[in-house]
Amino acid sequence: MRHHELAFTGPATFFKAPYRSLAEDWRAEVGFLGIPYDFAVGYRPGARFAPGALREASGRFAPGAEGYFDFETETYCLQGVHLVDAGDVDPAQLEYQESFRRITQAALELRGRVGLPVFVGGDHSVTYPLLRAYADLDEFYVVQLDAHLDFSEARNGTRFANSSPFRRAVEELPGLKSVFVVGLRGLRTNPEAYRAARARGHRLISARKVRESLSEVLEQLPRGQKVYLSFDADVLDPSVLPGTSSPEVEGLTYAEALAVARETVRGNTLVGFDLVELAPNLDPSGRSSLVGARLLAEVLCSRYRDLPT
Amino acid sequence: MRHHELAFTGPATFFKAPYRSLAEDWRAEVGFLGIPYDFAVGYRPGARFAPGALREASGRFAPGAEGYFDFETETYCLQGVHLVDAGDVDPAQLEYQESFRRITQAALELRGRVGLPVFVGGDHSVTYPLLRAYADLDEFYVVQLDAHLDFSEARNGTRFANSSPFRRAVEELPGLKSVFVVGLRGLRTNPEAYRAARARGHRLISARKVRESLSEVLEQLPRGQKVYLSFDADVLDPSVLPGTSSPEVEGLTYAEALAVARETVRGNTLVGFDLVELAPNLDPSGRSSLVGARLLAEVLCSRYRDLPT
Amino acid sequence: MRHHELAFTGPATFFKAPYRSLAEDWRAEVGFLGIPYDFAVGYRPGARFAPGALREASGRFAPGAEGYFDFETETYCLQGVHLVDAGDVDPAQLEYQESFRRITQAALELRGRVGLPVFVGGDHSVTYPLLRAYADLDEFYVVQLDAHLDFSEARNGTRFANSSPFRRAVEELPGLKSVFVVGLRGLRTNPEAYRAARARGHRLISARKVRESLSEVLEQLPRGQKVYLSFDADVLDPSVLPGTSSPEVEGLTYAEALAVARETVRGNTLVGFDLVELAPNLDPSGRSSLVGARLLAEVLCSRYRDLPT
Amino acid sequence: MRHHELAFTGPATFFKAPYRSLAEDWRAEVGFLGIPYDFAVGYRPGARFAPGALREASGRFAPGAEGYFDFETETYCLQGVHLVDAGDVDPAQLEYQESFRRITQAALELRGRVGLPVFVGGDHSVTYPLLRAYADLDEFYVVQLDAHLDFSEARNGTRFANSSPFRRAVEELPGLKSVFVVGLRGLRTNPEAYRAARARGHRLISARKVRESLSEVLEQLPRGQKVYLSFDADVLDPSVLPGTSSPEVEGLTYAEALAVARETVRGNTLVGFDLVELAPNLDPSGRSSLVGARLLAEVLCSRYRDLPT
Amino acid sequence: MRHHELAFTGPATFFKAPYRSLAEDWRAEVGFLGIPYDFAVGYRPGARFAPGALREASGRFAPGAEGYFDFETETYCLQGVHLVDAGDVDPAQLEYQESFRRITQAALELRGRVGLPVFVGGDHSVTYPLLRAYADLDEFYVVQLDAHLDFSEARNGTRFANSSPFRRAVEELPGLKSVFVVGLRGLRTNPEAYRAARARGHRLISARKVRESLSEVLEQLPRGQKVYLSFDADVLDPSVLPGTSSPEVEGLTYAEALAVARETVRGNTLVGFDLVELAPNLDPSGRSSLVGARLLAEVLCSRYRDLPT
Amino acid sequence: MRHHELAFTGPATFFKAPYRSLAEDWRAEVGFLGIPYDFAVGYRPGARFAPGALREASGRFAPGAEGYFDFETETYCLQGVHLVDAGDVDPAQLEYQESFRRITQAALELRGRVGLPVFVGGDHSVTYPLLRAYADLDEFYVVQLDAHLDFSEARNGTRFANSSPFRRAVEELPGLKSVFVVGLRGLRTNPEAYRAARARGHRLISARKVRESLSEVLEQLPRGQKVYLSFDADVLDPSVLPGTSSPEVEGLTYAEALAVARETVRGNTLVGFDLVELAPNLDPSGRSSLVGARLLAEVLCSRYRDLPT
Repeated sequence: MRHHELAFTGPATFFKAPYRSLAEDWRAEVGFLGIPYDFAVGYRPGARFAPGALREASGRFAPGAEGYFDFETETYCLQGVHLVDAGDVDPAQLEYQESFRRITQAALELRGRVGLPVFVGGDHSVTYPLLRAYADLDEFYVVQLDAHLDFSEARNGTRFANSSPFRRAVEELPGLKSVFVVGLRGLRTNPEAYRAARARGHRLISARKVRESLSEVLEQLPRGQKVYLSFDADVLDPSVLPGTSSPEVEGLTYAEALAVARETVRGNTLVGFDLVELAPNLDPSGRSSLVGARLLAEVLCSRYRDLPT
Repeated sequence: MRHHELAFTGPATFFKAPYRSLAEDWRAEVGFLGIPYDFAVGYRPGARFAPGALREASGRFAPGAEGYFDFETETYCLQGVHLVDAGDVDPAQLEYQESFRRITQAALELRGRVGLPVFVGGDHSVTYPLLRAYADLDEFYVVQLDAHLDFSEARNGTRFANSSPFRRAVEELPGLKSVFVVGLRGLRTNPEAYRAARARGHRLISARKVRESLSEVLEQLPRGQKVYLSFDADVLDPSVLPGTSSPEVEGLTYAEALAVARETVRGNTLVGFDLVELAPNLDPSGRSSLVGARLLAEVLCSRYRDLPT
Repeated sequence: MRHHELAFTGPATFFKAPYRSLAEDWRAEVGFLGIPYDFAVGYRPGARFAPGALREASGRFAPGAEGYFDFETETYCLQGVHLVDAGDVDPAQLEYQESFRRITQAALELRGRVGLPVFVGGDHSVTYPLLRAYADLDEFYVVQLDAHLDFSEARNGTRFANSSPFRRAVEELPGLKSVFVVGLRGLRTNPEAYRAARARGHRLISARKVRESLSEVLEQLPRGQKVYLSFDADVLDPSVLPGTSSPEVEGLTYAEALAVARETVRGNTLVGFDLVELAPNLDPSGRSSLVGARLLAEVLCSRYRDLPT
Repeated sequence: MRHHELAFTGPATFFKAPYRSLAEDWRAEVGFLGIPYDFAVGYRPGARFAPGALREASGRFAPGAEGYFDFETETYCLQGVHLVDAGDVDPAQLEYQESFRRITQAALELRGRVGLPVFVGGDHSVTYPLLRAYADLDEFYVVQLDAHLDFSEARNGTRFANSSPFRRAVEELPGLKSVFVVGLRGLRTNPEAYRAARARGHRLISARKVRESLSEVLEQLPRGQKVYLSFDADVLDPSVLPGTSSPEVEGLTYAEALAVARETVRGNTLVGFDLVELAPNLDPSGRSSLVGARLLAEVLCSRYRDLPT
Repeated sequence: MRHHELAFTGPATFFKAPYRSLAEDWRAEVGFLGIPYDFAVGYRPGARFAPGALREASGRFAPGAEGYFDFETETYCLQGVHLVDAGDVDPAQLEYQESFRRITQAALELRGRVGLPVFVGGDHSVTYPLLRAYADLDEFYVVQLDAHLDFSEARNGTRFANSSPFRRAVEELPGLKSVFVVGLRGLRTNPEAYRAARARGHRLISARKVRESLSEVLEQLPRGQKVYLSFDADVLDPSVLPGTSSPEVEGLTYAEALAVARETVRGNTLVGFDLVELAPNLDPSGRSSLVGARLLAEVLCSRYRDLPT
Repeated sequence: MRHHELAFTGPATFFKAPYRSLAEDWRAEVGFLGIPYDFAVGYRPGARFAPGALREASGRFAPGAEGYFDFETETYCLQGVHLVDAGDVDPAQLEYQESFRRITQAALELRGRVGLPVFVGGDHSVTYPLLRAYADLDEFYVVQLDAHLDFSEARNGTRFANSSPFRRAVEELPGLKSVFVVGLRGLRTNPEAYRAARARGHRLISARKVRESLSEVLEQLPRGQKVYLSFDADVLDPSVLPGTSSPEVEGLTYAEALAVARETVRGNTLVGFDLVELAPNLDPSGRSSLVGARLLAEVLCSRYRDLPT
């Protein structure tokens, strides 16, 4: 029997939820799947440690039975929502095609069990195999929060690095109708990738645009659609989240990024959600993981809406 | 004989002020008392090292005889104000009642010697024994800058952790009429604590409110009262001050927090001031301590007002 | 279904063993219990994070079904030994008597379930409540690997800090006949504590003695007894394990410390084993946790002896 | 033959430009000169490592043949601009007059070879010998982005520390007509220095002013002049760039600082540009160097203007 | 013209040697080739940064024209030996077969230009493509200093990770007659790999053996052969070199490891030498890179033998 | 009134001794003087922070009234010895001649007040002005524990860096008859310096010699002389003390270095003692400062000899 729990006690699972293997038979409202894969990072590695670090950090935000309470609105969220930690996909290291196969398969299994699958990367390359688990959908959209476009045909000699997941996904998934990218601000960009994305009808919104008018940006998001939300940690300003492979100055504030995520969740049917590119080893203060954990919680709060007490 | 002094020379004392033990007889305008106690932290410890770290960092802001000069207004502050470092309270480690007794006693002694006692924690639990040193006041108020309410009846099996100091204080001190809390934004909050605080008439102001309208918040602060100012380092945004046990995103900017502190000091009679929950070990860049030291200096500047040259 | 597992995948448990709560009914050969309690540390805290860090680090040493293979002797150890992670005791933070009560109770429950309970602290104060779980034994001994005696009557105003666990234990447990302390080398020692320990017949062996003649030291260890092994991480030289509250130069090598632990295990009946005072936050290289995890594994190897293939 | 290059491959040079020694004969549009000198820092050293760290970090922003592409305006900058890394000045360590002599001489040589010399410090004291390389100009101006005035007659017993470069420069260079300082916000300021600067007609603009109205500040900058831009990394808010000797809260955002630099470059003839006081050792996250490298690139982009594709 | 040089000045190259691209035509006695590839690391990444870090650190050991002087023997080594930094191989990131092809090709080119090629990894997987550059040799041997055997058929789903380079090499290179492995001490070993290595006649020597009798170990090394020396940084004790992916306690001292390397070099014809698995990001003290740089220098000293003055 | 004191409480002074300014009149047995000067370091700076860091760390070894107790010999040392912290010399930063003048003057003043002056650097350049304070002695010797000779005529363009203090001292002080250097092991040595030192009759003993036979080395030390002991932190192996500018592998163990220091103290009349080149910023684990503090204590113990109880 457990007593009142401190944040750091017990084998760490996401938000202190029970761990249930995908090999077992179970159902839940929300399932977390870790994807400790960062072999596709072309700069500073470390995102492989994010599932572990987010399990630890999220212990600080473990919701009670009544969820979270907002004192300003006197409302609760996540009340009674059943969370499960479904463990991690085991990467096949160098053999990325096999790793990607395992990721797609695990995502499919998780989709079959839960109302909302939450994927915790890993680098952004994993979003391609994750999206393959949605190949059955006739029409869906991606909202991507990201400093970078990640739509390169190839980079550093490979077509499957973390610069290309959305290029690969749209090639393979006819149901993926469009990608809305919010937060762009890389310096060394790839003109071909931008032109290809625009040619395909993707919506490309810079971080500067968000700062100028968040409300205009929110209006451009999809409505009433099936949407997969892909949150690259580097969309946030590095002062908020320094622990990421390729930080870029002048990023979104946490509130801005959360507003985009919230509007996405509230205006559409969320079919999946990933948080990628958080590299805890690059932030000795530990706050990057805390920010990531809080973000997971608040996006879930948007989905499992605030109910009056 | 000392020459021009570099910031890091000499045995470190607060702002290079002389050290005078409370065992000796002396008087001064401002007295600093360190309280290296963080045994009540339920998450990441380290605030026990804050008095030492702030002594070191404050060497960089040691005021000259003429105090600090503001080039925009051509005014000075802290001119000729006599500062003393009164040393630290020695905690009794696990025996918190004894530690608290020593803290209260040292605070009483300091109050008897100086115009303004400044307490440097330590975690926030120490504000309870510090406030006990004001039991003689018939009516006074607390302005608390904090991300968290710290008004829980109990937590993790104890009623005296850093989640409860103000609950304990109001129970014991009839003179403590109300607490104004500014900067609230925790995610995993305690509904009962919020309701109890409101029921007692406390003013609870979120960080979001401060961002929306700082001037409205300033208007809600007490006026013309005896006020104790309790500054929890985590009220600041973690990008400004990452070195704290429980950082929370979307905190106050330094300017916002200073404005609240300044307005408090200028509109009331400041009877005491603490800075707590700064954990220097959690910030390898060292800037958290520099921010804390500068904050101490600028709050004192508000009190020992700018005089035309 | 899991594939070949990388060290860092999955919710971390000790050596990737299954987690089974003490609230459930189960039996195993070895059970690990974490005790994330470091409120009794009078210097640099952090041992509260050791259970989490050792769970993560031990993933690198997760034994396969056949245990570990030694290529020089062509033998295996830990073959087929059933390990369970029994989770953590939840400390009651400031209320040490309640924390200690919970620790003793959990230890008792674990003793009832497993052949060998392994306790992962936490600071050394927890060994006192752990030893209370052996109050039923008429005669048993402690072998303590430690740089410090930890036998003070009181320190810093308390009798229950990490300087006193063995003083408290011998006062309360008539069955605890003697303590063999190996590795002593503190500078600021407490003469009264040394005299009291010797008066009670404890064996006090310095690190210098170990360096002079390890074999003589091994001969002085108990034989054929019920023994509880208490391993304070600071017995190791800080170059081997820098992540500890109070490192002392000229400590034992890993091989020396392991030899003492092995001889203890092989020559006696091991009734319990703790590893304490490892503070992962004090070692940014991460190797302290890897050393601690390997030590746990190798002590278990001594117990579950090498069998020819 | 090189393939697509990852950021971190090859001997690091500024933006992966070729290294050409000043002992050789060559011409280029832009030449970088490192000045690994921080012996004049009176607080936390480390700027000596900035040239090396910026060479490494700038690998991530190595422009391709077509320069950088801005997807919002569909324009390019730095297209076809020839960059050269001219290596470092070797300081004579303690012998600052000799170090300064070498710096002036190397700057003169670089000026003779390139359209725009870019100097990477080192601490701010090096701007004095750098400016001496412009003694031939009859009239030129300095725009200084800085938290501190750096115009002290002397400090800590010396007239040549990083608190005094501009005082020394105006004494020696009749052509240096005025200094525009933007971003001032130090607490422990030197009244005499401020008065002397104002008496000489320097324009002193606080960080607060920039926040109040960036456009008004931009209007106060020089126009149509020969200008030397001196960028002290501490003008940026420490949340953006923590790696600097003397961080000061409430600094400029990256966008604000870049706007000031851009306006300076576009409205005038840029004769030289330095980036100083970046101390990579004070920022274990590595992002300070990335910010510095990006800033160098974007200032160059302002100079080698955006051309329609 | 350069003055006396400090360790950290100038674009960093190995030992401040000139950089010459493999695309150019040149000859030298010793050529360094960096291989910033660590995508095959199954635990803690970072070896991709070793070539850059060793270039920086080796600046401290830049030999003068007369090489290094040994005051005890009054001899010099490396006198007049011509060193060249040949740059890095650009990995193709995820596409390991392509990366390996590039590595082999670059190694071949370097072999054609220099008396002794020195390869700086990267993880240990790169030794396989490096050894392929010696396919022309009818008979040669490998001396491998390593904590781990690295002879697994496959691991974590791949046959090309850093656990398998020597298995792959012996399969492909009939000229590679045997591997002498010194320093073995992993805990979680692979019995099949050990048996396969022994079956093929490899010599497997534990770290324990080295401690027992270094001279006996030295006698077992090959004599009079063509030898490739592969130095895995983790053969060293983690107290000496903490910056490595998989540190193992009870490693070789620097003197022991150097003795093995020296004896190998002096008793045979050294055809190639690699230093791998140094991960500078895992050692914030920076000393791991300094140890690695010194080791490179001292192995070269063994090869370019001490000559009387 | 102080209670039992934790290590980290109170304004930090050396071993919690009272601070007495050299401007006041006092006498004591032992006086500590900090010299926070590292402007003469040609590699990694940080020794300027050593006096502050050693004040903090030495709190852990604050001797009680009875000094330290050795349980093996049942003896005490430092019993009743009066310690004073005399503060720091204020460097004149760039103006090294002025800094050196202040150091010499302060050392002279301290010598006039105490039985044994203990100097805490700072880099090794400060030993030259310290030794000048002994110009009145007709005959005295230096025992220097050091990895490097520090006897260069000049380096990097200066004759006063930390490579030359003993060259300068012997030039200026006829009474300084010889220097015994123990622990030498640098790689990039200066042949001229070695020859000059030998020509002057200095005794040069390598670290290798110490390892081969410590007793032979001890026999070579001076006897019955006035001796100044200069302890460069880098004489210790970097595994023991990583926090130093220029760590060199294969250094002395703590026990070996202490044995040399002890023998020096016991066999001679100790006239002064310095500890230099400890750079706390290069060791995030904090143990370098703890080692340095312990070393100070144990050298004092050798001087204020063990008395039977």
